[in-house]
Amino acid sequence: MDIKDVISSIEPVDEVFFDKAKQRTSNLIMPFRAVGMLNDISERLCAIQRSLKPETDKRCVFVMASDHGVVEEGVSAFPRVVTCEMIRAFVDGIATINVLARQNNARVVVCDVGTKCDFESRQLSGENEFVSKKVSLGSKNFTKTAAMRKDEAILSIMSGFEIAKEKIEEYNLNLIATGDMGIGNTTPSAAIASVILNRDPSEIAGRGTGIDDRSYKNKIDVIRRGIQLNKPNRNDVIDVLAKVGGFEIGAIAGVMLAAAFKKIPVVVDGFISTAGALIAYGLNPTVADYMFAGHLSEENGHKLMLEHLGLNPILRLNMRLGEGTGAVLAMHIIDASARVIKEVATFEEAGVSESEK
Amino acid sequence: MDIKDVISSIEPVDEVFFDKAKQRTSNLIMPFRAVGMLNDISERLCAIQRSLKPETDKRCVFVMASDHGVVEEGVSAFPRVVTCEMIRAFVDGIATINVLARQNNARVVVCDVGTKCDFESRQLSGENEFVSKKVSLGSKNFTKTAAMRKDEAILSIMSGFEIAKEKIEEYNLNLIATGDMGIGNTTPSAAIASVILNRDPSEIAGRGTGIDDRSYKNKIDVIRRGIQLNKPNRNDVIDVLAKVGGFEIGAIAGVMLAAAFKKIPVVVDGFISTAGALIAYGLNPTVADYMFAGHLSEENGHKLMLEHLGLNPILRLNMRLGEGTGAVLAMHIIDASARVIKEVATFEEAGVSESEK
Repeated sequence: MDIKDVISSIEPVDEVFFDKAKQRTSNLIMPFRAVGMLNDISERLCAIQRSLKPETDKRCVFVMASDHGVVEEGVSAFPRVVTCEMIRAFVDGIATINVLARQNNARVVVCDVGTKCDFESRQLSGENEFVSKKVSLGSKNFTKTAAMRKDEAILSIMSGFEIAKEKIEEYNLNLIATGDMGIGNTTPSAAIASVILNRDPSEIAGRGTGIDDRSYKNKIDVIRRGIQLNKPNRNDVIDVLAKVGGFEIGAIAGVMLAAAFKKIPVVVDGFISTAGALIAYGLNPTVADYMFAGHLSEENGHKLMLEHLGLNPILRLNMRLGEGTGAVLAMHIIDASARVIKEVATFEEAGVSESEK
Repeated sequence: MDIKDVISSIEPVDEVFFDKAKQRTSNLIMPFRAVGMLNDISERLCAIQRSLKPETDKRCVFVMASDHGVVEEGVSAFPRVVTCEMIRAFVDGIATINVLARQNNARVVVCDVGTKCDFESRQLSGENEFVSKKVSLGSKNFTKTAAMRKDEAILSIMSGFEIAKEKIEEYNLNLIATGDMGIGNTTPSAAIASVILNRDPSEIAGRGTGIDDRSYKNKIDVIRRGIQLNKPNRNDVIDVLAKVGGFEIGAIAGVMLAAAFKKIPVVVDGFISTAGALIAYGLNPTVADYMFAGHLSEENGHKLMLEHLGLNPILRLNMRLGEGTGAVLAMHIIDASARVIKEVATFEEAGVSESEK
């Protein structure tokens, strides 16, 4: 399939199941919609899966990894090599995403879509799956040139789409999440959001892994210069991704397209994943109906980005780690929502008296 | 034990373990404190349990039930009999708390501490434990007289304390939660909070199970009249509980005392449980160090009540059901926090490069 076929074949969620689900919610033995967001989530699950018994037990988080040329501008607190070191930790199962994925019964699939790491010669195997699908050896420094070519941008999206589609089919997944690894990647994410939301980078960029005031000022300046130099067209998200984006961000957008294509829910992690969601949404806004926002990140512009997508974050835990950590944790709340609509008795079934008013 | 012995024997959490836990957090392979509230929770767990390997696997929610004389003033959308019907549903395992407790691997112990239900003659048994420890057959209408006598208020607290202490010992529990059932109980809860926080009832009371504008105005008026008539002393929480409270609210305070007494964490559910927390906090403020606020309820004054206790709610899902539902769901986030500090590798263990700045 090419990207146009993918985009045009995505179908809206099912309004009939939405309405049926709302009907069932109003009959459950609780005051009207008394579990709030759990009711909302459960109804959208029904509409996505075309079922009043939504399933959320076969889970996977796709951790997309890449390197960023813009790191040479001093935008991160960590050296570039940490991208490779953390990929190894993910495959070995010792990082935060592994701990939370185990708790939430989610597979971890780590995908290198554009790092400088040499995992070809140093064999990478461990308790978690690793997929190498490099589009390039890292993006270019966008203060000097475009981050990537347009065909590479499309390739990064399709890489994410193909990996996710394959794993969804292989494992019969019914709930997936996105995650990211890439030292420096809050910078292209903030650049993408600044362009698409038409906001100054100072309203969007945050401190990422924890940079000081001076580095933070520099980071905002770097993003401004990248946008000025490359002049991305905000109405063409492929152009935005190519000029100021990153390979893992494109791949994350591809994972979201795959979820919508396969009619399963996808949990968007934090700031970087939401930049990917902006790309996917720009390609086809219907994709957002398949998205759940896992959490509200500490990173400045995340709230604005979620508002653009019409998403209400499930968790607000002041997290800012990425890796997919907020998304896998939110899978539990999504699962709770599915159970509520499937397992709580109705007034009639339970013989409980209804409201008088 | 009498209540004075209980109150005086509660010890503070351990600051040495707090500091050791903070040290470990700063060495985990993530940017400094990058999982935000999860880091905070995990450190307090260590301080509560006096361990760097906090355990959160043996769980129980205590659903305290009672009836309220003030229901005859038309403060609820549901008839009083629903208290009894829902208790049966809890024991049968078909209500929302059961569904979420199963998801979160928590036992459900339902305790009748003051209902009008006749569970003595109609045998009550099912998949969940039921304990009858009635202090009285419902509280009195506090617009006409005190809700209960002072000795009954103390007895309700000690009932909750004893039930929880017994079950903590029997099942070796390491994480407990409070829940409530009692048609009309947002009214005494709002009355308690109005008195203790010294706020007008209109700032505290919400719509409970979903009353209309007219009933809501009446509810606020009922609370004002109850406070005017009974003049509870806001510096004496037993007096407040006796004059405008309810038996399940006292019992919930007792569960919290038991958690602190046994040095295990207790998850406070929503509005009614937090009224119980205000009582426990008034008896000994140290108890709050053992509390986690499960969620922020939709009920108006809940935010102010949590601020009074110095608690930051874990979940914000617009829930307003009670039963302990928000608390058992939050157990999962608390468990995630325990796993992060126990299982995530350190920079040294993983061979990952540290921050340069």
